[in-house]
Parts: sequence; C-alpha cells; structure tokens
Amino acid sequence: MNILVLNCGSSSLKFQIIDTDSDKIRNNDDRELAKGLIEKVGSQDAMLSFKSTVKSDDPTSTNIYKITKPLADHTEALNCVIDWLNLPSTTIEGVSKLSDIHAIGHRTVHGAEHFKNSVLINEDVIKELEHNVELAPLHNPANILGIKAATAVFGTNTPQVGIFDTAFHSTMPQYAYMYGIPYEYYTNYKIRKYGFHGTSHRYIAMRYRAMQGKTVEETNIISLHLGNGGSITAIKNGKSLDTTMGFTPLEGLLMGTRSGDIDPTILEFIMKKEHKSIEEVVNILNKRSGILGISGISNDMRDIEDGIAEGNTRAILAQDIYCYRIKKYIGSYIAAMNGTDAICFTAGVGENDITVRQRVCEDLEFLGLEFDAEANRNCIRGEETLISKPSSRIKVYVIPTNEELMLARDTYCIVSNNPITE
Amino acid sequence: MNILVLNCGSSSLKFQIIDTDSDKIRNNDDRELAKGLIEKVGSQDAMLSFKSTVKSDDPTSTNIYKITKPLADHTEALNCVIDWLNLPSTTIEGVSKLSDIHAIGHRTVHGAEHFKNSVLINEDVIKELEHNVELAPLHNPANILGIKAATAVFGTNTPQVGIFDTAFHSTMPQYAYMYGIPYEYYTNYKIRKYGFHGTSHRYIAMRYRAMQGKTVEETNIISLHLGNGGSITAIKNGKSLDTTMGFTPLEGLLMGTRSGDIDPTILEFIMKKEHKSIEEVVNILNKRSGILGISGISNDMRDIEDGIAEGNTRAILAQDIYCYRIKKYIGSYIAAMNGTDAICFTAGVGENDITVRQRVCEDLEFLGLEFDAEANRNCIRGEETLISKPSSRIKVYVIPTNEELMLARDTYCIVSNNPITE
Repeated sequence: MNILVLNCGSSSLKFQIIDTDSDKIRNNDDRELAKGLIEKVGSQDAMLSFKSTVKSDDPTSTNIYKITKPLADHTEALNCVIDWLNLPSTTIEGVSKLSDIHAIGHRTVHGAEHFKNSVLINEDVIKELEHNVELAPLHNPANILGIKAATAVFGTNTPQVGIFDTAFHSTMPQYAYMYGIPYEYYTNYKIRKYGFHGTSHRYIAMRYRAMQGKTVEETNIISLHLGNGGSITAIKNGKSLDTTMGFTPLEGLLMGTRSGDIDPTILEFIMKKEHKSIEEVVNILNKRSGILGISGISNDMRDIEDGIAEGNTRAILAQDIYCYRIKKYIGSYIAAMNGTDAICFTAGVGENDITVRQRVCEDLEFLGLEFDAEANRNCIRGEETLISKPSSRIKVYVIPTNEELMLARDTYCIVSNNPITE
Repeated sequence: MNILVLNCGSSSLKFQIIDTDSDKIRNNDDRELAKGLIEKVGSQDAMLSFKSTVKSDDPTSTNIYKITKPLADHTEALNCVIDWLNLPSTTIEGVSKLSDIHAIGHRTVHGAEHFKNSVLINEDVIKELEHNVELAPLHNPANILGIKAATAVFGTNTPQVGIFDTAFHSTMPQYAYMYGIPYEYYTNYKIRKYGFHGTSHRYIAMRYRAMQGKTVEETNIISLHLGNGGSITAIKNGKSLDTTMGFTPLEGLLMGTRSGDIDPTILEFIMKKEHKSIEEVVNILNKRSGILGISGISNDMRDIEDGIAEGNTRAILAQDIYCYRIKKYIGSYIAAMNGTDAICFTAGVGENDITVRQRVCEDLEFLGLEFDAEANRNCIRGEETLISKPSSRIKVYVIPTNEELMLARDTYCIVSNNPITE
C-alpha cells in the first residue's frame, strides 16, 4: 500500500511516499519511494526540494528536483508534489495515477488527553484538533491545514490518518505528568505534561526490541532524541513512564534555541528588567535561548564544536551545559525506573555527534556503564551501532530514527484494520 | 563566647543564644542557652515564645514564656528578648549583662556572587545586601532590619556576622549554575542558579564527615533538606556541585506551597486563562501550589498522611509526586557525581517522616541502595541514624540539622579570627 506521509508546519510541508503492508512491516522491508520538502509556503519564493528514492539499476531514475516559485498555501504546495510525480509517466514504480496513493498519514503534534493512539481522520477528529489549538498554537493549525490540503487534492475517498507526537506518552502515570500547581489548573485547563517526539521514541523502542529479540514488556530503555529540539524518554516495560518535554516542547533539556528547565521566577524578572510582555519573554525562551543563547554563535552543535576548536569559552560552556543536563536526566530516569538495560541515542545530534555521546556517557561507571570510545568514533552514519563495551551493565546504542516509517505503518494499519505495530 | 543568633523574616524574629569557642567546636560541645520565636512583628498581637534551654539540676530553671503583645518593629521585638533575659538576675548562667552577648550572627539569605563565605558586617556589607534586595525581595530586607535592630539594641561595639544561605553553593561550577537563556541575562542581571539552605547542607556534610572520620575531600553525599521548603544538594569532595533550588527558592522539588519545576510556558498560559498579572501567577506558584495545591488539603505532610489514611486520592497523588521528584533528583545527582557514598535526610520531613524516607529509597536496588525499613521505622527523633543495611553500597542516614549552630560557630570564628570550620 502506497502511503503519502505529510508533516506540515506553518510555512512548510515535508512528505514521503512509502510502500508498506503487513508483510513488509514484519520483514522490516518497507520501501521509501520519494521524499521532499517545501519551505516558505505562503510566499513568492517557496523552495521545493524533491527526490525520488526508489532504488533502481537505472542511475537516471533518482530524480532530484529543486526549484523556487510562488506558493499561496499548503494546497498549492501539495499540488506541486503531485505535478512533480508526473503521472502517469512517473519513474516511481507502482504510482501511475492519483488513486495509487492509497492513504495519507499526517504527523499531528498535539493529541492532548483525547488521542492515545493514531486515528482515522474525520470531522470529529478535526474538531478535536481545533479544540487543542490553544495547547499547540504553532503546530496544530498547520496540521489542520495539511489535512484540508490533502482533502482538496485527493478528495474524501482517500483515507487520512493522524499520528500524534503526544500519543506514545499517554501511558505516563499521573505522578509523572502532573505539575505542582493548583489541581484545578489541570481539571479546568488541562495543564499537565504531555511530552513530544513520541513517534521517534516509539520507533527507538521498537528497533531496540527487534535488535534484542525482546518483547514489549521486556523493553526497559532510555531513549535520547537529540536534534535541534530534544527530549529524553524513560521507557519502562515498553511504555513511556516519563519524558523531559512537558506541557509544551520548551521544558526539559537545553535545546538549539530553547532554554529547557529554568526557575519560573526568571520570567517575571526578565519581564521587569527588560520591560517585556510575557509573550516576548516566552518567545525569547523558545527562539533565542538554549545553545544559541549561551554560545552567542549558533543553535547548531556542529558550529559549537567549531567554536570549541577555536577556544571560544561560551561555545565550551554551551556544550558543557548541554551534556551535563542530558547526563542528569539519564540518572534521574535510572532512579525512576530502578535501572535501565540501554541508553539509545537518536536524531541529528544523537546519531552524528561523537563528542556529545562521549561526554554524556563518560564518568558513569558507578551505574555500570562502560563506554566504548572507539566504537563510538567508528560509528557509521545511518547504522544501528552498539557503542558500549560488551561487559557494560547498561548498553549504549546509536539507533537512527525514522518517524516517517512509523507514520506510514500506522496509516497502513489503521486503514487496513490491522492492529498497530507496537 | 556567647553568640546571639538571629533569623529575621519580614514579620518574624527567631533567636538562639549559643555558647561556643574553639574547644567546644572541636569537641562538638557547644551549649544552647536559650531560644525563641516572635511572630507577627509589626502587629498589635505579636506572639512571643521563649525558652531557656540550659540544662540544670534545678527543674524550675527551664523558663518557658509565652505572651501576646503589640510590637511595632524588629527593634522592639529584640528588646523583648533582652527584657525577658531579666539581666542581671537571669537564670541563664554566664549572661548577666548585655555585654555578655559577645557577638551576633545573622542568617542572611542572599549573598549573590559577592559573598562566598560568612562575613563581619559593616557598612559596605549592608550596602551590598541592599544591592541584592532585587534578588531576594522577601528575605534580604528582613535580614537588614534584623541587623539594624541589633545595632540599635547592642550598639556598634558588639560585632555582627552575616552567614549566607547561598555561600555554600558558591562552589558550583558554571555548567551547573547557568541557565539556558541568553548569556547577557547573566552578565547584565546576574540571573543564575544560587541555591539556598546552604548552611543546612553544609552542616549535614560536616556531621557526615565527623561520623565517618572522613576529610572534606572524601565527602561525597547527597543532602536532602526536606522541610516546608526543600532542596537537595550534590556534595562532591565536600563542595556543593549542584542543588535543586535555583535563582530563587521556587525551583526544584515539590514543596509545601511551592510548585518546584514547571514548564515555563505554564506562566503565560495561566496569565491568559485567568487574566492574572505575572506577579499574581508567581505568587500562586510560591504560596498556593506544591503539596497544598495538588492535595487541596494542606502544605503539611502530616496532614497529607492523615488524608491518605482516609483514602483521599489527591493526598495520595501529592505524596506520590513529592517522593517521585526527590527520587529523580537523587538519580540525577548520582549521575552528576558518578556515584555517592550516602544520602542524608534532614529538616522537618526528612527527620520525621518515615513514609517519605521509605518511598524515596525503595526500588533503588539498581543503584546498590539497600534500605533498612526497620531501622527507618525505629529512628529516634533528633538522633543521627543509619537507615540502610550494612551491605548497602549507598548508605542512607537521618541527620537532624542545626543551622543555628553553624551560625554561632561561624560568628565565633569570624569574630575571633579563627578559620571557619568546614
């Protein structure tokens, strides 16, 4: 079954076309057919970058396409994707007409307490997404635009599925998700920890399990999704027990531009000192803080490492803080779970940053973690790799994430009435 | 040397008179002569409660005094203490005239980055305390009132010493004390983690060392000061490496009425939902949150345990969250220090709450903590007690705190030009 996977931001549209079904899921043999990204949707110079990724003996079949053009909205953007497919004469095997896209899977960010699993999208689901806009004012409106664009382009007969970032964390116990604020703020306004990156953390748990031949119940790991945003999840018996992001993605780790945890009084102090509104301060904490704010150089860990090589003390400090906080959360979740079998690094920084992985894992011998610095250095990009010593009580892995694959599989399972792969 | 120890709040004055000197410090033989509390200073019905605590064969010598009377300010309050002493015919041996109070030690809350140790108070020190009022708007003005009251009553010839709550934490490395916010907020406004309860954490480290015959360098413990406020400190090589309270005492653990850690976005959300100012929301986070906010019953853990006995689900939740967060911070600091030799409970809840200690320490076998539930239950109030099994890799102690003793000793050492006891 060919699934179009969509991840719509307020001015962006990311897609993949993935061919999957029960056999392919079982054999981990899903086929990625095409993928692409459109940025600056809604502007005169939207940037399109598409790629057919079907493996073929014909070297010309990898069709890379990059242009800039005006795009009014997400519907126009999605129509560009269809135009590019160049039906019926596309080089993408098995997709010769629009109805060969059998279903559409949307990354939907905030399911609140309502959506604990992926769901077939209908009017009620859209209403609930609209209802949750106040919880995810940046993300949910864009997700709704994506759903409406897909309906405009594919009509109502192509089923659409919503896969929520928050769903995997719906298993958190109340003692983990409640804040220490008056209880009525939870009952009246649903202020609680939701957690994000759930699809990625779920994928990591699934891959760990597949590698180890373990059951869901036997899966006890700490999953580190470290990208420009970042979160760590304590996965106990295969379920999210706790995670570092909270009511919003601002809480938790130091991130590219986000502060992560701070003393709440700091907001009041900055508002007064700088004569700023609460919106302005929260915006600073989201956009100008984190690694960027501390280093003054960049939100990108690669630039920070260049800065460190040049002896920039604020770049050194940014990396120190970044790694120290990750290490502390690892300890925190080991205590919460009374141990862990493994620590799994994923996402941009987690998969590619040798130094960060080394610094996070060193000096944890008390916990029984024996890091393998050489295996860490020799990690091959995109490969699942063990980077702890064979004798280590806690195993450390690099596991490249693949959220799109989870989106495609969930969409297939929902549409075909198969149980969702855990 | 007779030291008057003062702890002044905005409407309260706590005092002790302690006789100490180098020999007494060495032999842990300091004598508490009297203590008392005045509440509602500045009102028509201030409440005085004083007690002479000198041990004597004469049973009438323990002189308890409780009255209510109008008190305009801290100077009047301090004069009440002097009146009560009933010089020269006081029953308190060695104190027959005002000049027998040889020095005064003040608990001063916020030393900012300026005061890394206790200090002899002079005009410059008072100016610096006034300068730090914006960092501790509730505490430092009251501390200054206490200093001025002591000068009014004792004159300028009786030396006064300031002992800072923040001083013990001045050893935190920059990666532990910096927030993930734009760097210039640190350079311009000194927004950073300061930590509090330093005098208590320092006392715990000192007692642990004395019990174990260890040096400062050999002191690797996690100190849990759990009262109505609460903080945990990671003490590595005898120095504070990290602590849960931050820029203000609002951050960190769930406390009696304080929220502890929350997603910073929550402040904006509550402001909008409830049409409240930032001051109102921060006030709610300080005064109406924490155990009180979650349980809806009380900020006092004893009331919570009564609620639990009655099956109150929100009381159960409050205790669940309280213990879970402490446990997570223990794990976090074990990772930060690459291990710990001991976990030490102190302050109201830490010294007296059997259930909380049990719940915090159970299910930590992975870390090598073997809790002794029976020793925990049989703990005698006010005694230093081991509550882990002899084979436990991490030892667990109850160590009653004594901040006043530290204040008296520091005052003695500063006034007599002796090095401060670590």
